[in-house]
Amino acid sequence: MNGPVTLGPVRLAPVVAALPPSRPFIAPEELARRSGRSELLRLGANESSFGPPPRALLAMRTELERTNRYGDPEAFELRAALSARYGCAPDRITVAAGIDDLLGLAVRAYLAPGDVSVMTAGSYPTYAYHVNGYGGRLETVPYENDGSVALDKLAARARETGARIVYLANPDNPSGAFASRAAVAAFLAALPPDVLLILDEAYGDFVAPDELPEATDDPRVVRMRTFSKAYGLAGARIAFSIAAPETARAFQKIRLQFGVSRTSQAGALAALAETAFVDGVVAEVGRGRADYRALAQRLGLATLPSRTNFVCFDLGSRERAEALVETLLGLGVFVRKPSAPPLDGFVRVTVGTAPERERFGAALVRALAA
Amino acid sequence: MNGPVTLGPVRLAPVVAALPPSRPFIAPEELARRSGRSELLRLGANESSFGPPPRALLAMRTELERTNRYGDPEAFELRAALSARYGCAPDRITVAAGIDDLLGLAVRAYLAPGDVSVMTAGSYPTYAYHVNGYGGRLETVPYENDGSVALDKLAARARETGARIVYLANPDNPSGAFASRAAVAAFLAALPPDVLLILDEAYGDFVAPDELPEATDDPRVVRMRTFSKAYGLAGARIAFSIAAPETARAFQKIRLQFGVSRTSQAGALAALAETAFVDGVVAEVGRGRADYRALAQRLGLATLPSRTNFVCFDLGSRERAEALVETLLGLGVFVRKPSAPPLDGFVRVTVGTAPERERFGAALVRALAA
Repeated sequence: MNGPVTLGPVRLAPVVAALPPSRPFIAPEELARRSGRSELLRLGANESSFGPPPRALLAMRTELERTNRYGDPEAFELRAALSARYGCAPDRITVAAGIDDLLGLAVRAYLAPGDVSVMTAGSYPTYAYHVNGYGGRLETVPYENDGSVALDKLAARARETGARIVYLANPDNPSGAFASRAAVAAFLAALPPDVLLILDEAYGDFVAPDELPEATDDPRVVRMRTFSKAYGLAGARIAFSIAAPETARAFQKIRLQFGVSRTSQAGALAALAETAFVDGVVAEVGRGRADYRALAQRLGLATLPSRTNFVCFDLGSRERAEALVETLLGLGVFVRKPSAPPLDGFVRVTVGTAPERERFGAALVRALAA
Repeated sequence: MNGPVTLGPVRLAPVVAALPPSRPFIAPEELARRSGRSELLRLGANESSFGPPPRALLAMRTELERTNRYGDPEAFELRAALSARYGCAPDRITVAAGIDDLLGLAVRAYLAPGDVSVMTAGSYPTYAYHVNGYGGRLETVPYENDGSVALDKLAARARETGARIVYLANPDNPSGAFASRAAVAAFLAALPPDVLLILDEAYGDFVAPDELPEATDDPRVVRMRTFSKAYGLAGARIAFSIAAPETARAFQKIRLQFGVSRTSQAGALAALAETAFVDGVVAEVGRGRADYRALAQRLGLATLPSRTNFVCFDLGSRERAEALVETLLGLGVFVRKPSAPPLDGFVRVTVGTAPERERFGAALVRALAA
């Protein structure tokens, strides 16, 4: 290739060329490397500190022997089990490599470049990453001052902007707020008739099933659930959506057919049967939230009500919150903070095991004294 | 929702709305269910019958205990090890959930809707799936009659059509053909100066490293390698690309950041060190190809030369080849066949273990007698 022709760079597709470099999250591994530590106390990614369910671990260990074989791209057995659990036909269920994967599918399927999507400013960053990544236009509405999601304003913004997709995390991340079944029904009724509502229920296992929206035949709704949180399988990358059959068919036309690990499918299937274990995790997370509230009270800090496996501590200002995240990292503790007002003065802390909570409490006391 | 308003269906983005339902592959699990068997002799997906490398299995088993933690989205350790192995900077390496995932990233990044991509008709179907899925226009060139890839015609078609991406599987799937280092260099020289060349080297571990293209700084080339074939980790969904830093940066802007399982990263890292095991697999696959050639010769069937872990048997016509695939399935043996002329009269059979090859031989004899 010594000719006079100038080679590349190859021209990017316009949507991708226009994107700034961005990552939704800096991972704890990278923060550990930066801070020269081999490991951090991981209370920043809302992982479950309670491990994978024992029978899921066993099932995965057994299935590992067959890692040389591709997994079932249709996740037939898992979808059958989910169908029985959630009382909906298997053709409404899509299994994918985490809710992140499902969010990408929904945006790709329903948001053409230039189309508008509406979400709460500072809610789950990976949703915004996908909207930007596919050339969509993001319209945001701030949280209410009490940390709840401004459902009426979200619906109004969706109507004003002709939004194609509305994103609602419920329970919400990073606030921990929860909108009741009735509130979600009213929200849905206030949305335009042709909008897709993504209900990201990543933290749905931390509320009672009858508090969540009923299984709905509304073709506008896609509910997303994950094995990453209460089920303790974050590293396995497996989640599912329940939607209208036509939405599931749209995902089927574009999804990565072999994107989910074989072992992870076996783990999720076994985890689904571990109801007592998962109930125990949910109960312990409730105790942990109470511990965090008591800790905050002792230190004179307010907290946001939470229905999830994390609690937001009010530091009063963005500067103090950012400083606390940095100071805690220096003490070997990984936490994150909401990015946008009015929650940018909070620090979000995952509920760990009791010893982890104690370790966090001690670090917090030290950090605040610094 | 009892009002007069008609709800949904929600409008799909035009590119996705225009897609017919399609799946690149029907999986062996589904074929087994259809044929009422719990398991098939799997010789249709070019999986490794030789299992995951022992130390990879051990590493994954250990890492499973931490499945409750997300994996490192940057795959820092694995990229460092790959960088050392392949003699290229880590910022040129992207780790993803299989070559399928990487192909999707390349198409999304470089092929705007309506843009042209060129490939061999009947080569890897998932590439075509992505081109269609992102609204690209696919131009194909047939294989030569001897089963080799028509490199000169591919390059000519790329020049004529103003193609943005050219796809070349080398060694090729499903033919098994291989283009030498010199042939690929000449091909690259014949391509337009601003085209992206995807070199899908999924089967690259079955040829000697010095037969493959040299690590190149040509910004037009993205090489893709997988742990699914010789490394025996198909179910783990892990692969990587080596490309210009600007290409890796483009992928970084749009990729699913947490798409690869934590356990799979640990498995791939350990597998990379299992050189003796992988060399043993490659040697045994060579013996298996010779067995298949001898079997074909005894039965009066021609075969295509192959540099991969599969061999194509010539049945003489599409009808005979399709009938054989069905008959073998009835005997509990899963194989596939190339879809497009001039190779549509062939049946493609993965090299299994020696006992699997004997079982296949016996089934083939029975099927041909039927």
